[in-house]
Amino acid sequence: MTFLFLSDAARASIFAAEFARSLPELRFATSVTAAERHTVRYLMTWLVPPDLYTYPNLEVLFSIGAGVDQFDISAVPAHVKVVRMVEEGIIQTMREFATLAVLALHRDLPAYLHQQTLGQWKARTVLPARSRRVGVMGLGMLGEAVIQALSPIGFRLSGWSRSERSIADVDCFHGDDGLPRFLATSEILVCLLPLTTETTQILNRDLFAALPKGAAVAHLGRGPQLDHGALIEALDNGHLSGAVIDVTDPEPLPPNHPFWRHPAIIVTPHIASQTQADTASKVTVENIRRLVSGLSPIGLVDRNKGY
Amino acid sequence: MTFLFLSDAARASIFAAEFARSLPELRFATSVTAAERHTVRYLMTWLVPPDLYTYPNLEVLFSIGAGVDQFDISAVPAHVKVVRMVEEGIIQTMREFATLAVLALHRDLPAYLHQQTLGQWKARTVLPARSRRVGVMGLGMLGEAVIQALSPIGFRLSGWSRSERSIADVDCFHGDDGLPRFLATSEILVCLLPLTTETTQILNRDLFAALPKGAAVAHLGRGPQLDHGALIEALDNGHLSGAVIDVTDPEPLPPNHPFWRHPAIIVTPHIASQTQADTASKVTVENIRRLVSGLSPIGLVDRNKGY
Repeated sequence: MTFLFLSDAARASIFAAEFARSLPELRFATSVTAAERHTVRYLMTWLVPPDLYTYPNLEVLFSIGAGVDQFDISAVPAHVKVVRMVEEGIIQTMREFATLAVLALHRDLPAYLHQQTLGQWKARTVLPARSRRVGVMGLGMLGEAVIQALSPIGFRLSGWSRSERSIADVDCFHGDDGLPRFLATSEILVCLLPLTTETTQILNRDLFAALPKGAAVAHLGRGPQLDHGALIEALDNGHLSGAVIDVTDPEPLPPNHPFWRHPAIIVTPHIASQTQADTASKVTVENIRRLVSGLSPIGLVDRNKGY
Repeated sequence: MTFLFLSDAARASIFAAEFARSLPELRFATSVTAAERHTVRYLMTWLVPPDLYTYPNLEVLFSIGAGVDQFDISAVPAHVKVVRMVEEGIIQTMREFATLAVLALHRDLPAYLHQQTLGQWKARTVLPARSRRVGVMGLGMLGEAVIQALSPIGFRLSGWSRSERSIADVDCFHGDDGLPRFLATSEILVCLLPLTTETTQILNRDLFAALPKGAAVAHLGRGPQLDHGALIEALDNGHLSGAVIDVTDPEPLPPNHPFWRHPAIIVTPHIASQTQADTASKVTVENIRRLVSGLSPIGLVDRNKGY
């Protein structure tokens, strides 16, 4: 029985060591021959291999990342479980980066970076975090972790999710009905939504118009959620003041895309969070044990919801 | 008896309202005639006015800022108390900005900003905060507040101060003897030292060489503490990886200064912290009451130490 791991060599060596220590009875491999394919019961990868149908005994497809939107789930046989990565390293690195992005927008970093290109020393009024409201879209594990990180800094906090949620000291809104009221006071909007048909192009002209004047946006969800042209328009007409964009559509962002040179946009190349092999390998071992015991794995994807 | 307030109009109106409410017996003024100068007992300002000697009954000189290094204290009569601003707004805004600067360096923001100018989409390995050690120079109120903000993010923490200090979960070093060991493991160095003759040019070539290779620097202290040429040299030879520079010498930084265009430096125009008038006016009222009662004001400067 084989666990096939298709990712980079640095992570593979950490996973291999953890599997050798904790699951010595399971073969850990980074490649298999055609003759060995029938032994593969578990496959961990970022992209679904086009020859997935050649693994006749595959039971579980693990994503190496937090999302599974990069998978074409329709190409995965119905009996194969799909599991996304739920591990502390992804959450921790997202907490850090979201804190960085929110503080950068709160403290006018895009404007100061633009001034820097001009050699311009000009202070802007500093307001403390307690005078600023941050709105987090998406209240899953990542969204809640980000809220927990922002809270001690002093920000006022709102949250929006598809279904109703309640988080202490956070003004929670949900559904289409709750969206306008959520947006109306979100001075810094953080998108951490999963990519579904409902969230595709959710960051559009209407949504930006519903934010208060001078608001800023940190997009840490998935590229197809953002209407690129609408963002540039809202920045250029002064309704929005700045943006941190970590995910784009397509990725990589083409070298001639206007985001790269826009004075109010900070672009980072999808690095807000990354699976940390040390913690991810332990969670994966735990999930194998759960599966062997007949328990549901942590991060099992509901194919109807898509996350 | 007059409290003379020499700062911007926005702050003045907030101070005036607080004084009218809490100290109605004291006259609050933003200017006085020559004939009224003898009534001025308290003066709050950023720079010492050259005609300070024309206020014969001045008892206390208040700085509107956290430091008094901008004062020429030798020009202040010996019987005049000098008081620096100690108020929550300065501390809070410094906590926020130091967190922003440390996270920006931790997550390679200078490198990503440089890549952005090239239209280059290239991810770097993300390490979580727990794998990074931040060293804070200066463990006064600001330094300790910054440490408290960085701790929940997960950073390993060291501190260095002139005299011995002890802070829970922080590796504390002090004095000239403790400096090399403090520097040797500080991967992100934060300078929050007061400006004194001993700290002038403390961020020099030798200090940078004592940091681990690849270290980064957030300079949030005072401009004259940094040898500008030594920083550029250490960045250009690859020993240091990046810097956030909020204070320079001189200020404003001249438009042709190499910091503005250096690909590894983020320059901000001395905005890490700003006195917040709402909290500062309350502290100042409290200090007047303490002085009237014969108590020592909060923030009284020791002229021998210079802070």
